[in-house]
Amino acid sequence: MSSRIYVLNGPNLDLLGEREPQIYGTQSLADVEKLCLSVAQRYGAQLLFRQTNAEHEMIAWLHEARRAAGIVINPAGFAYHAVAVLDALRACECPIIEVHISNLYRREEHWRQHSLSAAAATGVITGLGIEGYRLALEYLLLRHTAAHP
Amino acid sequence: MSSRIYVLNGPNLDLLGEREPQIYGTQSLADVEKLCLSVAQRYGAQLLFRQTNAEHEMIAWLHEARRAAGIVINPAGFAYHAVAVLDALRACECPIIEVHISNLYRREEHWRQHSLSAAAATGVITGLGIEGYRLALEYLLLRHTAAHP
Amino acid sequence: MSSRIYVLNGPNLDLLGEREPQIYGTQSLADVEKLCLSVAQRYGAQLLFRQTNAEHEMIAWLHEARRAAGIVINPAGFAYHAVAVLDALRACECPIIEVHISNLYRREEHWRQHSLSAAAATGVITGLGIEGYRLALEYLLLRHTAAHP
Amino acid sequence: MSSRIYVLNGPNLDLLGEREPQIYGTQSLADVEKLCLSVAQRYGAQLLFRQTNAEHEMIAWLHEARRAAGIVINPAGFAYHAVAVLDALRACECPIIEVHISNLYRREEHWRQHSLSAAAATGVITGLGIEGYRLALEYLLLRHTAAHP
Amino acid sequence: MSSRIYVLNGPNLDLLGEREPQIYGTQSLADVEKLCLSVAQRYGAQLLFRQTNAEHEMIAWLHEARRAAGIVINPAGFAYHAVAVLDALRACECPIIEVHISNLYRREEHWRQHSLSAAAATGVITGLGIEGYRLALEYLLLRHTAAHP
Amino acid sequence: MSSRIYVLNGPNLDLLGEREPQIYGTQSLADVEKLCLSVAQRYGAQLLFRQTNAEHEMIAWLHEARRAAGIVINPAGFAYHAVAVLDALRACECPIIEVHISNLYRREEHWRQHSLSAAAATGVITGLGIEGYRLALEYLLLRHTAAHP
Amino acid sequence: MSSRIYVLNGPNLDLLGEREPQIYGTQSLADVEKLCLSVAQRYGAQLLFRQTNAEHEMIAWLHEARRAAGIVINPAGFAYHAVAVLDALRACECPIIEVHISNLYRREEHWRQHSLSAAAATGVITGLGIEGYRLALEYLLLRHTAAHP
Amino acid sequence: MSSRIYVLNGPNLDLLGEREPQIYGTQSLADVEKLCLSVAQRYGAQLLFRQTNAEHEMIAWLHEARRAAGIVINPAGFAYHAVAVLDALRACECPIIEVHISNLYRREEHWRQHSLSAAAATGVITGLGIEGYRLALEYLLLRHTAAHP
Amino acid sequence: MSSRIYVLNGPNLDLLGEREPQIYGTQSLADVEKLCLSVAQRYGAQLLFRQTNAEHEMIAWLHEARRAAGIVINPAGFAYHAVAVLDALRACECPIIEVHISNLYRREEHWRQHSLSAAAATGVITGLGIEGYRLALEYLLLRHTAAHP
Amino acid sequence: MSSRIYVLNGPNLDLLGEREPQIYGTQSLADVEKLCLSVAQRYGAQLLFRQTNAEHEMIAWLHEARRAAGIVINPAGFAYHAVAVLDALRACECPIIEVHISNLYRREEHWRQHSLSAAAATGVITGLGIEGYRLALEYLLLRHTAAHP
Amino acid sequence: MSSRIYVLNGPNLDLLGEREPQIYGTQSLADVEKLCLSVAQRYGAQLLFRQTNAEHEMIAWLHEARRAAGIVINPAGFAYHAVAVLDALRACECPIIEVHISNLYRREEHWRQHSLSAAAATGVITGLGIEGYRLALEYLLLRHTAAHP
Amino acid sequence: MSSRIYVLNGPNLDLLGEREPQIYGTQSLADVEKLCLSVAQRYGAQLLFRQTNAEHEMIAWLHEARRAAGIVINPAGFAYHAVAVLDALRACECPIIEVHISNLYRREEHWRQHSLSAAAATGVITGLGIEGYRLALEYLLLRHTAAHP
Repeated sequence: MSSRIYVLNGPNLDLLGEREPQIYGTQSLADVEKLCLSVAQRYGAQLLFRQTNAEHEMIAWLHEARRAAGIVINPAGFAYHAVAVLDALRACECPIIEVHISNLYRREEHWRQHSLSAAAATGVITGLGIEGYRLALEYLLLRHTAAHP
Repeated sequence: MSSRIYVLNGPNLDLLGEREPQIYGTQSLADVEKLCLSVAQRYGAQLLFRQTNAEHEMIAWLHEARRAAGIVINPAGFAYHAVAVLDALRACECPIIEVHISNLYRREEHWRQHSLSAAAATGVITGLGIEGYRLALEYLLLRHTAAHP
Repeated sequence: MSSRIYVLNGPNLDLLGEREPQIYGTQSLADVEKLCLSVAQRYGAQLLFRQTNAEHEMIAWLHEARRAAGIVINPAGFAYHAVAVLDALRACECPIIEVHISNLYRREEHWRQHSLSAAAATGVITGLGIEGYRLALEYLLLRHTAAHP
Repeated sequence: MSSRIYVLNGPNLDLLGEREPQIYGTQSLADVEKLCLSVAQRYGAQLLFRQTNAEHEMIAWLHEARRAAGIVINPAGFAYHAVAVLDALRACECPIIEVHISNLYRREEHWRQHSLSAAAATGVITGLGIEGYRLALEYLLLRHTAAHP
Repeated sequence: MSSRIYVLNGPNLDLLGEREPQIYGTQSLADVEKLCLSVAQRYGAQLLFRQTNAEHEMIAWLHEARRAAGIVINPAGFAYHAVAVLDALRACECPIIEVHISNLYRREEHWRQHSLSAAAATGVITGLGIEGYRLALEYLLLRHTAAHP
Repeated sequence: MSSRIYVLNGPNLDLLGEREPQIYGTQSLADVEKLCLSVAQRYGAQLLFRQTNAEHEMIAWLHEARRAAGIVINPAGFAYHAVAVLDALRACECPIIEVHISNLYRREEHWRQHSLSAAAATGVITGLGIEGYRLALEYLLLRHTAAHP
Repeated sequence: MSSRIYVLNGPNLDLLGEREPQIYGTQSLADVEKLCLSVAQRYGAQLLFRQTNAEHEMIAWLHEARRAAGIVINPAGFAYHAVAVLDALRACECPIIEVHISNLYRREEHWRQHSLSAAAATGVITGLGIEGYRLALEYLLLRHTAAHP
Repeated sequence: MSSRIYVLNGPNLDLLGEREPQIYGTQSLADVEKLCLSVAQRYGAQLLFRQTNAEHEMIAWLHEARRAAGIVINPAGFAYHAVAVLDALRACECPIIEVHISNLYRREEHWRQHSLSAAAATGVITGLGIEGYRLALEYLLLRHTAAHP
Repeated sequence: MSSRIYVLNGPNLDLLGEREPQIYGTQSLADVEKLCLSVAQRYGAQLLFRQTNAEHEMIAWLHEARRAAGIVINPAGFAYHAVAVLDALRACECPIIEVHISNLYRREEHWRQHSLSAAAATGVITGLGIEGYRLALEYLLLRHTAAHP
Repeated sequence: MSSRIYVLNGPNLDLLGEREPQIYGTQSLADVEKLCLSVAQRYGAQLLFRQTNAEHEMIAWLHEARRAAGIVINPAGFAYHAVAVLDALRACECPIIEVHISNLYRREEHWRQHSLSAAAATGVITGLGIEGYRLALEYLLLRHTAAHP
Repeated sequence: MSSRIYVLNGPNLDLLGEREPQIYGTQSLADVEKLCLSVAQRYGAQLLFRQTNAEHEMIAWLHEARRAAGIVINPAGFAYHAVAVLDALRACECPIIEVHISNLYRREEHWRQHSLSAAAATGVITGLGIEGYRLALEYLLLRHTAAHP
Repeated sequence: MSSRIYVLNGPNLDLLGEREPQIYGTQSLADVEKLCLSVAQRYGAQLLFRQTNAEHEMIAWLHEARRAAGIVINPAGFAYHAVAVLDALRACECPIIEVHISNLYRREEHWRQHSLSAAAATGVITGLGIEGYRLALEYLLLRHTAAHP
């Protein structure tokens, strides 16, 4: 049984740590990846950590990940109007956790509070900074290893 | 006079037959292509059948198809917020038929019922499964061969 | 097994060809009937072609047609607020195709774009002129003769 | 003093018991009439029980019933956009009870939850199946016989 | 050239003078007819004065009146959701004046203030009681006799 | 099998008969209780009649009543925004009838017309004054005694 | 008893006949005044015909006209957001007719169809060109002379 | 420095495990408490675990907890319209994590997706079952012990 | 005649002076009470000054105060969705002044600007800090002593 | 230091006492001025009391009053859409109290409940009749004399 | 051919440089006039630079400018609800550029982002400070001198 | 110090001059580039002029341009729903001018009037044809050379 796990990051997250640090913190995406790897290693799982600014690349990765052990997705700007990403999420057969670094409920723009993609996720973690990635991974891996000892 | 005809498919349709079969049926996109080819052959027309998950590729194809004999488009997730696709459709000078496999009027999500791109099409066929492709092609080719005997 | 097929036309369609020809074309309802008869004959089916301005007559016909081989309906002005027609459509057990001569998505009035009755139909064809009737009949009869050879 | 009482039924109720039994139950309109007659007999009142799919017939009956002892109306599809029925209801001088067999609050369609005609009724009973008719009649007849012993 | 003129009255106007006299006054529809006849006679025009509660009858009369000298219509309850009447009005080639006895802008209900059919009329007179009929007829006949001396 | 039946009244109903008698009538809550007791006695059922202004007390009573023979609830001010009461209603396994003394459809405030708790009830009776309680009890007890003779 | 009658015209009407003649016609405000004077003379009434671009001047005139025999107002641009004009209209004790030269229901802008000031008028005439002024004056003067012979 | 930590549960959570197990699972609130205690012990923190159906009791506890090391709150039905709870949360000076057992984004009701209280929280965990409590506690205690070694 | 006057304070006002002092100032509720007492003594009136976090307690106090000389209420969080408090306010027969310490019109949240309870008050004072209490009391007592010298 | 205080009244307030006395009372603006003068004299302040129907005059006065001791404004019809007045209020550097004679929250029109200008005021007093002026002046002058003894 | 060019400024711009300098900068309207004059001199054009707080004066100036070489307008508070200004702009036959000093899209108020008058302008420049005036003039004069060498 | 300046063009602008010339004019994108180069040369700046139909390419260019001297962007179809482009714009540290060739305020579609990306720009120029590019560049370069002589 597969124990691959995907962590997929949407547009502009390559600037993490540089852009609006008062909202997103000062840690870079490389720091996030390191954090995720350490969790995956603890569970003996294979981690695939990626980032893209292109919608079609995100869709291709979701197709690839359809039967993985789990997906952690930070859709960033794709959360709001990218229906094609939503449809790709719906085609996945594994559990999905959507992570947002900042608390969407506190964002100034009205539409930031309505994540289209969240409706396709198993659960949502928002506002806990990059810790949200770690919690999401632990939830997925604990559940996966329990089911496939 | 050109008798090229385009059948253009939007994001996630490469999964047709696998994803949500209770809505979209069990036939694959290859089956759709075979169906379309048999209609085109009957009329002696050249068929260009394509699928993409990338908005810019869809736009490029529409620019290429601007003066073809006709376009059948299943915009899938691009139907709703992809203004750039709508603008490319408006730049086309040939008849366009938008096809949806399921009946949009019965989808649970409110925005699924408002296709932005439909306003740029000559007509719309929705809810007749992959038969919708066949009917659209027959309409376009009958009309084209009548005008260019 | 019944091979009766109904083509039911709503209010003001008796004026077809006279009223707003730039939108609805110059062919009359008699021309539509002739077109439909030729399709039905090709499949050996019995065609019942009718038009009414009265909501209750449309409802009575739908009750009569509940177990026919199929229904093609152009609800015209009944598409928008006639809940009683919608309820009668829901009571039908055969496939239904809703046909509109012009493309609803291009009509100036907002409410023209929301067909209440479309939600009760199997599929919808809009914007292909009176050809829409022909395509709808072919779809229904092909499907019916396949199931009852 | 008149002790005539009207029970008026709107469109598609002639299909009661056949159409969507999981919502409307399996009893027919004839069963409803029998139920109503037994109540009326108990009070020595004259019952006029009718059904129509035609809006103008419903209006004519309401004009006839304007000075009866009471009206029970199940407007069915006329509840939502039939302003002419609403106006006829307003012209009545006797108490009116609107009855719906299913619970409007639980219907999937948004507009089903807003009965236009309900604003002209004395009261509304919804969701109690065909028992709603019996309760409505008892309310009206009890009140009428108390006032005219 | 035709000098027939139609005055068409919608549902519940047969109760005029009895229903809500504080809004609609105490004069009956017969009084309105008398008033209209006297105006028509002054201009030597033929008056056709009618009332119906049935939408399809109103549509039939409008089809009949399409090429008359003019139409005065008090659509009453048909003003609001009867799209089929609106479509029939649009098919008319003569000037149309819509008359309402009370001032729609002062009615308590929001939707009373939006007459769908008014968009198809040449002009609208509202709030002037039954005098509105007289003014409408004078406008139409003055204009007609000027054009056809 | 239990034949306990609850009649639970929400905030301000202790003022019944004193507050806005033109809407709610002149009878007190004691009168309502007397009326309910007489119905219960007729069926040999045990009646628990209560009133509270405190949301948590209402919730506790609903927990206690979860497996009773039935619940009649007049949620009064709790009908609109009290999600906790709605959740408690959903946890009940017996039939529930929501009663409102006045006709919600006629209340001036928009939000009065949308009862949140009504979605959790089996049925709703509104606008029949305190008779609504009696009708509700009879419906519940008739059904209960039929099932447990 | 006063037989003064006011005809008050709002902003930009001094350009009548020059501005957008396809909507407003080619007759100037002087032509309108001449038309109004001839009607007033026929009834022996005193006419006060005025135009202003200033909201406060319109308000002052309405205060002056509060106890006149009647007011005809074409509020033009003041019809939509000028609450102060609405309040001044409400302070008037004589009948008021609001006149619009074009049919508001046919204007392209949404807000043009909602006249704030119409709610304070006795009646509204719209879409009959400058004839609307004549009809309004005749209604007011006929009524006034009947009451003060 | 205080290392008290509060876990506060809102209305109807005393029924956890019994009510709608397909949404909330089969574990009881006692199981949740046990889970939370084991986490707290691991960090040597003092746990205060409580549940209430009363809004004022929740407010009192929040006042008491204002300067604790952290608060985990499952507001249940108080999440939506209980402004007083929101104000009490805002008065707290410690980090707050809001936990929901089911995924709010998947609940059928629109308002379930808008948690008012979430705006006052540091972060939100939703859809991870009772594991959400554990993750929330670990986040708070890790952060607290890092700051107060 | 009674000269009792109530000053009733809603949830979280027990924290006044501590919570968000930049909005609510640094004076405590005890300071407000002292200020109110000095006004009452000047007029020889009996003051009942109270605070609660419980909705049902607020309702009970309003029932008690129904026939007092006047009520000053700062509903705080109860202003927005607490329909039961609104109903209790409506049952009061004495003048009521609603006081808010900050200017609701300047609050960031949309719903803060719509006080449900304000519709039941005689008047509203907002944005004048705790001076608002003093002005409200002076208004009520001046008026009361004038009527009952 | 300046102790000039402005009381500025918007359009139609010159009719106070005459217009709709059931809403605005029977006292005239001269009575309001007298009341205000007596308060100002008590504090030794200079009162400037004015009324205008012209928006530009109100703006000019606000520019003049920018550095006064305080402004009491009853914007009347300017409260709702007069953005220029709002901008002028924002340019003022002294405290501003907006006064409305009737309770806006009880007005029938929706837009009456949203005062645009209130967002620029320090506080708002509504529904206390002309007493509102007195309370506003006392608040401003007490505060001013405390700061400039 | 006329080479007069108008620069028209709306309400409160006489306070430019004093009011909210963090938004509007510190330069006065006299500075803007100097800047505009230097551009006009370079092109040998006649500049008419004006400011008003009165809507009717703005309308009169627009009537005067109808056939000038061009208009630069900063409508300020008139941009939002002043329909009469919009109508006057529409009557102009020369190009119009609307200038706003700050970026409307960044203003906190929702309605600030919808300029009614912008729909009547040839183009809009917003957010470039007083440089916007210079760019607008250069555009108009370059175009004008090209057409009238 | 960098004096690179970017001119970035969104989807379908490669068709400029061909598509809908009555809206966008007959000049091609090559003409726009020539115009921009001549301005840049006059200021001795380096121009990077690009066009793409791909959202991710636009994002990559914006990341590259983050610390340039300025950006002129014509986002075309990306202006409306492309949140990822908006986020990339926000990450830029140089001034940005958004240019639209046609006046958005005059486009028939409602959503065309709401540019999402405009909120991230320093200023917006719309409706001045391709001259808008020239004005934008002059503004940016004048400002840049002033700051870095």
